[in-house]
Amino acid sequence: MDDDTGALPAKSDFSAWFNDLLWRAEIMDVRYPVKGLYVWYPYGFAIRKFVYQRLRDLLDRDHQETLFPLLIPEQEFMKEAEHIKGFEDEVYWVTHGGTTPLDVKLALRPTSETAIYPMYALWVRSHADLPMKYYQIVNTFRYETKQTRPLIRLREITSFMESHTVHATWDEAEAQVEYELALTREFYDGFCIPIIISKRPDWDKFPGADYTIAVDAIMPNGKTLQIGTVHHLGTHFSKTFSITYEDKNGEQQLANQTCYGISERSIAALISLHGDDKGLILPPAAAPIQAVIIPITIGKRHEDVMAAAQKLEKDLTAAGFRVKLDTREMRPGAKYYWWELRGVPLRLELGPRDLDAGQIMVVTRTGEKSPIELATAPDGVKTVLGDITEAIRTRAEDHTRSHLSYVATMDGLNAALDAGKVAVVHWCQDRGCGDAIEEKTNASILGTDVRSEYITDTEGTCIACGKRGKATLVGRAY
Amino acid sequence: MDDDTGALPAKSDFSAWFNDLLWRAEIMDVRYPVKGLYVWYPYGFAIRKFVYQRLRDLLDRDHQETLFPLLIPEQEFMKEAEHIKGFEDEVYWVTHGGTTPLDVKLALRPTSETAIYPMYALWVRSHADLPMKYYQIVNTFRYETKQTRPLIRLREITSFMESHTVHATWDEAEAQVEYELALTREFYDGFCIPIIISKRPDWDKFPGADYTIAVDAIMPNGKTLQIGTVHHLGTHFSKTFSITYEDKNGEQQLANQTCYGISERSIAALISLHGDDKGLILPPAAAPIQAVIIPITIGKRHEDVMAAAQKLEKDLTAAGFRVKLDTREMRPGAKYYWWELRGVPLRLELGPRDLDAGQIMVVTRTGEKSPIELATAPDGVKTVLGDITEAIRTRAEDHTRSHLSYVATMDGLNAALDAGKVAVVHWCQDRGCGDAIEEKTNASILGTDVRSEYITDTEGTCIACGKRGKATLVGRAY
Repeated sequence: MDDDTGALPAKSDFSAWFNDLLWRAEIMDVRYPVKGLYVWYPYGFAIRKFVYQRLRDLLDRDHQETLFPLLIPEQEFMKEAEHIKGFEDEVYWVTHGGTTPLDVKLALRPTSETAIYPMYALWVRSHADLPMKYYQIVNTFRYETKQTRPLIRLREITSFMESHTVHATWDEAEAQVEYELALTREFYDGFCIPIIISKRPDWDKFPGADYTIAVDAIMPNGKTLQIGTVHHLGTHFSKTFSITYEDKNGEQQLANQTCYGISERSIAALISLHGDDKGLILPPAAAPIQAVIIPITIGKRHEDVMAAAQKLEKDLTAAGFRVKLDTREMRPGAKYYWWELRGVPLRLELGPRDLDAGQIMVVTRTGEKSPIELATAPDGVKTVLGDITEAIRTRAEDHTRSHLSYVATMDGLNAALDAGKVAVVHWCQDRGCGDAIEEKTNASILGTDVRSEYITDTEGTCIACGKRGKATLVGRAY
Repeated sequence: MDDDTGALPAKSDFSAWFNDLLWRAEIMDVRYPVKGLYVWYPYGFAIRKFVYQRLRDLLDRDHQETLFPLLIPEQEFMKEAEHIKGFEDEVYWVTHGGTTPLDVKLALRPTSETAIYPMYALWVRSHADLPMKYYQIVNTFRYETKQTRPLIRLREITSFMESHTVHATWDEAEAQVEYELALTREFYDGFCIPIIISKRPDWDKFPGADYTIAVDAIMPNGKTLQIGTVHHLGTHFSKTFSITYEDKNGEQQLANQTCYGISERSIAALISLHGDDKGLILPPAAAPIQAVIIPITIGKRHEDVMAAAQKLEKDLTAAGFRVKLDTREMRPGAKYYWWELRGVPLRLELGPRDLDAGQIMVVTRTGEKSPIELATAPDGVKTVLGDITEAIRTRAEDHTRSHLSYVATMDGLNAALDAGKVAVVHWCQDRGCGDAIEEKTNASILGTDVRSEYITDTEGTCIACGKRGKATLVGRAY
């Protein structure tokens, strides 16, 4: 959309690289005239579409999609005390319609418990109505006072998937938490994003939850990004909003609930983990264009090559691939640069010599180059797309593994964090020790009960007090 | 979701029927505690999904989807004078973040010209950037002071498709208006909804447009529902927002623009036009479930029938139909009632005798009953779904045709409108005559330049003054 002036900063300068890449690759325009609000360019939106379609497909296995209003009346929003405490400073309030002051102030949802649960109170009647599993994908709003960042810290979260389930018992809700964690793992695995699951400490759980399980990714600079949370709400909200059901004995019982969220931070992780100094690298599952065909035409063979390129585009499209034939009047090198920046997984080069040899030269965005047969191009492309998916996954796994560091002393902890690592320590789960760790390191206790294939150690000596402790993630978080 | 207490009002009592059907068929819950805001039930949302997927598919032929912020800063919103006048009374204002008053008030978009066009000013540089054709599907807000109605008159329009195109010349923008009208016709034709296209009178055009072409449907009670508008914006907004391009001679030119909208009123029309006293009737293209299989099992043949029903479900699903096998422990009659209410186009009854005869009894939601062969069920279902689509289309066309009435006198006009018709009159296009017609009839001049296969008459004597006039639609509008 804009002139490609200058070059993309190196990825080692992660913040600059990220901000610059967003507009150069036409993901988001950050020039919207309100802090914390950004515009999705068509190319960015197309990536969003594939990411959220996958999320919908996974959820639709056993959830149903719904849509609740954005505006929440003040009296509903103010019902649940812990929840208010967690959100009251960052809620946007609508106070006027035209020039008329509203009788009741309306909150822009920061999350939708207080919009949805008054309706659940009407919908849930009997044990036969349970479990109830609905989700919505909506815009939500937070008046962030910290520094805002596109896709990461927003005043309008444009793409918030929030699932809200209702169950008869606490144990059934717990099983749902586990189900949704497995779903989250499957979701991210499709985009080659390694995740680490842990239980947030009590002081960092969702306001109104029994407990919060969070999903983090380790970003290129070693900071962690929370890219999903699942909350066991117990009966906190069902008490407040009177969500009760008649059990088999005809008695009224409080329902147990979970809620679960994923936002466009999923796309921030996708972009950040896989990209390189040349730009985006998109796993085929998220790529609006999976293969770009670059005809290399010289003189009188122009028509032959163009005809073959068009047939190739047709064959690959018919086989279900997302393909683009780039016929613009530009040097091939400029086209390579253009599509590399935009992360297209495969470049298919087709020139007169390739045509004579009955082949296409396939160049993957991760740098491998090999010919495939023109006659069986769909099979060849399928194989190479599988290869690049695995290459992207391996790179992301290596990155994640190499950014985790076991640490046994408080001094070692600061050194590891300063070196851009996420630390695995042992912690006794005492709040005092937790505060000591966080204050000394200017980092956060991310969580205990860590689930990661990279972390096998589970128990040891608390890094702060020396008592028995559990494996705990400590990191600097976005 | 709720007890099915009482019966659905007759469709002849349209308002009561519509409101009642929405919750009985689980389209929308109207009990959300803010006026004008409603909740989409999963079933309603599934219908929305098919309707909007079709709209996206049509638009994606030559538009690209984007997403712009909801919140518009006051100074941008207040830039275009006519636009402000059109919307200022119905804009919701966000004035506080937490307890902090905002420096700049933020409008909830009532439509997005003032959010999008400042960005277009940055994006459009040269004639090579044009045409630019983007759309988004978003929630928009209007502080309606009139009576609100679900899907029809909302304070949160949850599903507003707005397209915004930029062109070099006025003529190219006009051609785009025509393109989008053809697209709208194709969209509605897929759901068997007859539309009437006309040019709104000047006093009723979009604030800031050169002209507005509107798309209306005639509802069961004879009122018209505006279910789409395409606006030629000329250079009104490009002047205000400095959207200019460098032409081939290197000179700066003001761009010409169009905008175009379709909302969930499309679903209001779908429900209202096709439904009957028993409930919804969904055209197959919009039906979340296109065929429901009702096994009729008695005694020892239970397992045979269930096995055949399961195989049938599998075969039809594999053939690409949206099918549900209803195995609930309910009487068949209660199931029939349930699915009729929800508008499922086909009911497939399968009992022991059908099994012996190698057939299924197919009952369409419009009342036709015929057997198809079990062995070739996918072919049979395909045929009958085609038949019911045509039956639904014919019913809607008959309804529309029979609710149009040619009227030559002012007295006749009131009589026709009171009889629930939309009138076709001749009007000289003088504002005074227009006012006289509207005041005398408590109706609106909907438009001139009428495009409808039902209206062939084009010129005649103005119903108010007797001068030469053009065919004009007059109706009572939602």
